Amino acid sequence: MPTVKNDCTKIGWIGTGVMGLSMCRHIMEKGFAVTVYNRSRSKVEPLIEKGAVWASSPDKVAELSDVVFTMLGFPEDVREVYMGGKGIFSGVKKDSILVDMTTTSPSLAIEIYSFAAEKGVYAVDAPVSGGDVGARSGTLSIMVGGDPEVVEKIKPLMEAMGKKIVHQGPAGSGQHAKMCNQIVVAGTMIGVCESLLYGYKAGLDMKTMLSSISGGAAACWALDNMAPRILNRDFNPGFFVEHFIKDMGIALDEAKRMKLVLPGLALANQLYMSVLAHGGGKSGTQALILALERMSNISH
Amino acid sequence: MPTVKNDCTKIGWIGTGVMGLSMCRHIMEKGFAVTVYNRSRSKVEPLIEKGAVWASSPDKVAELSDVVFTMLGFPEDVREVYMGGKGIFSGVKKDSILVDMTTTSPSLAIEIYSFAAEKGVYAVDAPVSGGDVGARSGTLSIMVGGDPEVVEKIKPLMEAMGKKIVHQGPAGSGQHAKMCNQIVVAGTMIGVCESLLYGYKAGLDMKTMLSSISGGAAACWALDNMAPRILNRDFNPGFFVEHFIKDMGIALDEAKRMKLVLPGLALANQLYMSVLAHGGGKSGTQALILALERMSNISH
Repeated sequence: MPTVKNDCTKIGWIGTGVMGLSMCRHIMEKGFAVTVYNRSRSKVEPLIEKGAVWASSPDKVAELSDVVFTMLGFPEDVREVYMGGKGIFSGVKKDSILVDMTTTSPSLAIEIYSFAAEKGVYAVDAPVSGGDVGARSGTLSIMVGGDPEVVEKIKPLMEAMGKKIVHQGPAGSGQHAKMCNQIVVAGTMIGVCESLLYGYKAGLDMKTMLSSISGGAAACWALDNMAPRILNRDFNPGFFVEHFIKDMGIALDEAKRMKLVLPGLALANQLYMSVLAHGGGKSGTQALILALERMSNISH
Repeated sequence: MPTVKNDCTKIGWIGTGVMGLSMCRHIMEKGFAVTVYNRSRSKVEPLIEKGAVWASSPDKVAELSDVVFTMLGFPEDVREVYMGGKGIFSGVKKDSILVDMTTTSPSLAIEIYSFAAEKGVYAVDAPVSGGDVGARSGTLSIMVGGDPEVVEKIKPLMEAMGKKIVHQGPAGSGQHAKMCNQIVVAGTMIGVCESLLYGYKAGLDMKTMLSSISGGAAACWALDNMAPRILNRDFNPGFFVEHFIKDMGIALDEAKRMKLVLPGLALANQLYMSVLAHGGGKSGTQALILALERMSNISH
C-alpha cells in the first residue's frame, strides 16, 4: 500500500459517553483541533467549553476531519454512524483515517475497512480495555486492527489515550483480540461468583477466605476488583451487563462462523441473560452473582 | 476447650509425594525430629538420608509423634491412613495433633475431627495452594480449619512450609476455603483456554494477543502461567488433571449437600472428564484445551 497521505491534524470525534468523553479530552489536551458529534448534544458541552467545535451530524464531522474516531455503544450504532444517511461515509474525504474504538464485531470492522478502501479511505478497529478508570487516566489498553502504515500514523493520537497500544493484525484483529479479553473475563466472573457463593453457603468468613486465595492460582482481576464490590452488595456499573452481553453475543456469533465450540462463554452468556431478564442490564457485571443466587434460592 | 498439652517437638509425616517431600524437608530444616511413612518407601530415602526415621505403618508414626502431618492423594487414601487397620487412630496418643494437608472433603475433615475428639486427640485440616513450586520454596498458602488454640500451637510448624497461613474457622473450613480457590481456578481455566482457542481460530498472533489482554480485566494467574505452556504445547503437570477432578468432585458433592447450583464448576468438571477419558489424568490442568480442541475438531 502507498504512503498514507494524511497529516492527522484535524480530529473528529463521534460518541461522548463515559468512555468517549474522557478519551476525546486527552486528544484535545495534546493540542489537536477537534470537531465533535454525539447523539445527545448535552454530553458534548464539557468538550465545547474547552474548544471543541460542534458538528450536527457524522458526515459533517468527517468533512472537517483528517482522522475520525468513533466510540459508540452497539454494532447497530456503528453501522448507522458509518453507513447511515448522514453517516461518516457520506462526508468523508479521500485519505481520511477512520478509527472505530467501539467494541463491535470483527466482521463489521472488516466490512467498514473494505467499504472505506473502495473510497480511498483508511479504516482501523481499535477497541479498548481498562474501563472508565482507564479512559479517565489515559491508561487504556488499545487493541488495533488495520494496515501497519495507518496504525503507525495514528499511534501518537492513541498514545494520548492509552498506555498499551498493540497492533494485532489486519482489519478486525483488534476486535478479535478484544473478544479474547472478554472470553477470559467471562470465565473469571463465573469462577469468582460461584466461589463466593460456595464460601457463603459453607459459612466461611468471606474476607478471611479471600485473603487465603487471592495470591495464588486463583488470583485474578475479578477477584481483586469485583469480589469486594459483591461483598458490599454494590452493583453499580463499572462495566454494564448489557454491554458485556453485547460483547459475548459478538464472540459467540464469530465462534459460530468459525465452527468453534465455547461452552463456558455460552454458559456465561446465558447466566448474564438471566441478570438482564431481572432488570439488571444497567448493573455492573458483578451482578452475575444475583442470577446465581436466584438459582440456588439464596436471598440477602 | 482446655489448654493444648502438647509440646510439638516430635513430628510425624505421612505421604512424601512431590508436595509432601518438600514440605517435610522444610520441617526437618527447622531442626525437628521426624518419623516418616510413605506407601512406597523409595520416595522417603532423601529424607532418611537427612536423618528422618522410617516407620513401617501410620499407627507406628502416630505412636512416636506429638504432631502427625498427612499429605496424601485422594479422600480414600486419607480415610485408610487415618481409620484403616494400621491407621493413625490405632496408634495415636492422647493430646496428639493430627494435621491433614491433603485437599480432601470438608465432611471427611469434620468426621476425622469428631473421631479424634472422642479419643482426646486434636485434628486440623490444612490444605495448601501454591503447587510443587510453592512446596519447594516454602511459600505455600495454607488454609486452616480447627480449634483456634490448636491452630496457634502448630503455627510455627506451618510457617516452615508456607508464607500465608490463615485460620479459616472450625474443622472443615480449611477444606472449604480450598474449594473456593479451586472453583475460581476452574472458571479461569475455561476462560483462558476458550480465549486461546478463539484467538487461534481468528488467526491472531497469540503472543501479541496475550500482550494486549494480560494486564487488564482479563488478568489472572492462569493467563500468566498456563497460556505460555499451552502455546508451547507443554502439557506436563504442574497440577494433575486427576487431582483437579478430585477437587471439583468434592466441591460439587458439598454443593449438592448445601443445595447450591454451580453451573460453571459443573461444566469445568465435565470438560476435564473428557481430558481424563482421553488418557490425560496425569497431564497438567492446562490440558483442558485438548478437550476443547477436540470438540471443535481442531488438530495441532
